[in-house]
Amino acid sequence: MTCSSSADTAEILRPELPGMFTEYRDEIGHALRNALRGDDAVYNLLRYYMGWVDPEGNPAAGTEGKYLRPTLCLFACEAVGGKRELAMPAAAALELIHNFSLIHDDIQDRDETRHHRKTLWAIWGIPKAMVAGNVLRIVADGTLDDLQSNGVPPARVIAVVNQLTQAYLEMIEGQYLDISFEGQSEIRLQQYLDMIARKTGALIRCSFTMGALIGSPDAKVADSFRESGRALGFIFQVRDDILGIWGDESSTGKPVGADIRRKKNSFPAVYAMSEAKGEDKRHLLSIYAKEELSDGNVEDVLHIMDGLKVREHAHAMAVEEGGIAVDALAAVEMGEWAQQEYQNLVEFLLFREH
Amino acid sequence: MTCSSSADTAEILRPELPGMFTEYRDEIGHALRNALRGDDAVYNLLRYYMGWVDPEGNPAAGTEGKYLRPTLCLFACEAVGGKRELAMPAAAALELIHNFSLIHDDIQDRDETRHHRKTLWAIWGIPKAMVAGNVLRIVADGTLDDLQSNGVPPARVIAVVNQLTQAYLEMIEGQYLDISFEGQSEIRLQQYLDMIARKTGALIRCSFTMGALIGSPDAKVADSFRESGRALGFIFQVRDDILGIWGDESSTGKPVGADIRRKKNSFPAVYAMSEAKGEDKRHLLSIYAKEELSDGNVEDVLHIMDGLKVREHAHAMAVEEGGIAVDALAAVEMGEWAQQEYQNLVEFLLFREH
Repeated sequence: MTCSSSADTAEILRPELPGMFTEYRDEIGHALRNALRGDDAVYNLLRYYMGWVDPEGNPAAGTEGKYLRPTLCLFACEAVGGKRELAMPAAAALELIHNFSLIHDDIQDRDETRHHRKTLWAIWGIPKAMVAGNVLRIVADGTLDDLQSNGVPPARVIAVVNQLTQAYLEMIEGQYLDISFEGQSEIRLQQYLDMIARKTGALIRCSFTMGALIGSPDAKVADSFRESGRALGFIFQVRDDILGIWGDESSTGKPVGADIRRKKNSFPAVYAMSEAKGEDKRHLLSIYAKEELSDGNVEDVLHIMDGLKVREHAHAMAVEEGGIAVDALAAVEMGEWAQQEYQNLVEFLLFREH
Repeated sequence: MTCSSSADTAEILRPELPGMFTEYRDEIGHALRNALRGDDAVYNLLRYYMGWVDPEGNPAAGTEGKYLRPTLCLFACEAVGGKRELAMPAAAALELIHNFSLIHDDIQDRDETRHHRKTLWAIWGIPKAMVAGNVLRIVADGTLDDLQSNGVPPARVIAVVNQLTQAYLEMIEGQYLDISFEGQSEIRLQQYLDMIARKTGALIRCSFTMGALIGSPDAKVADSFRESGRALGFIFQVRDDILGIWGDESSTGKPVGADIRRKKNSFPAVYAMSEAKGEDKRHLLSIYAKEELSDGNVEDVLHIMDGLKVREHAHAMAVEEGGIAVDALAAVEMGEWAQQEYQNLVEFLLFREH
């Protein structure tokens, strides 16, 4: 494993999506379309949100996500010797639940666009968008029914479902914490890390754990993937936070400093607030106390973050977790393909540009 | 079974809550409090919504609901010879999911009070209320984990969970239909009945089905309870619709004509709109086209409904379903207590005043 801790190196690497993403993509898309083939009008909203159709229901191409969570789940299953088909219902459920959380998040944050597309509530209003999210959540449960008919033994089905229930609860509790933090400018770093471990981390951790549980009867193997998944969730979110401020607009769709302008309590902001001293600290507090931030405010915050080496510190913490992720699976027997893909995955999460 | 089809008789009967409600009440309350004992701030909102504490978290007495769905579930389990403790996790899940749907409904309908208490969003805002509802939904899933540790065999646990998943999906789809009907004044009666069969009926049907599934290994018994539960759901909602217009304010907390004033697409309104002819029809349409209704408008609608015998017709349809409910369980072997309680239950749902 050769992770550089230099942010500059990251710019040069621009890692490709690991092969597993293209390998599984079509099958995941197929399973998701099957899960959301319902006739009721609400399914049109959901097919739109998944990126398959426009608001009028006409086919739209190339706007799907990268299916991170289902890909992790299928990979974990295959890496420990299971057949990927076994894990597909769990993989689909993860993507559906992830999108459920985004639909509700959009409402809670009053975000009118996501990935350059209008959000559900912005088109159809809050009541319908809320319900559409709830439908997605329960369709996810429905896909899990197929685990048993796929041949996963009942006791293991229950174990898998319990993992998802637990992760989902953590995710929602994390959302609640996130909302509670709004308007507070002095969140402690530990509070923030606890919040993202729940809000984002739990479902990513669960993706790895469920895949391993389905693919292997060895509970220790699932524990190893759980620990690895926890670390991957951390890396994913910290990288997301870095991109939210320093990401290239052509890759992320957001201008530099976007998360500063919206005063988002992301890792860099929380870290800067906790590390800044004297005049810098006073200046940060006065900027974050404003209703709306000017271009000059955003530049000032970027300047203070540069001085505190916030970006470098965030990346170094992610790299450290990358080491933990690698160690977590060191004792698990995996074929060469899986080992190489796992390395690629960790690198990708550390250095991705979108 | 002696159900009168006269609305006047209903006034005289004022039936008591069947014994099962008081019999199970404390145990259900205990299970629910246990499920919602979490430390995170969001659980305070949920304990408030359940009626146990005030918004500041101080104990509040006597404001819980009557726990209809869990009571039906425990009763079905006991009636077919199961131990009620076995079904308690399912019973708790039903009440939690019911309350989840109310919390989200309150937001969707912008209702600021329910049962004389402020709703969650009215106190804590929409984002927190949405998330609180989602927590309730997932805590419900969590309680189902206890079915297996209670000794329900894994395959039957999965069957029970699948019932709930299906019913929950129907409920949400019904909510979506209900929202879609808003502002439309000419819903066909069949459309309305399909909507309430999903929005309200599915969870009540599921309460009976899950209880029977847990209490008896005989799938036919569960089918009988499913059919009975379907009929009970219908009766419950039609009675609710009657009370929403003609209920006594001291019992329902709503003035006479309340559902007319808010132009709710309930059974009486949909039926009146479909049956009214000539001048009555034109008058109804013109009133329902208004933004806000005056006292005179409400009185006019009440008058037209009287002329069409809407209330009597609604009650007669409920009574007919009462007969179906009774027939559905005729072939199921039940003790004398259960038979008597079941009769009391059907009468109560037909004639209740709150």
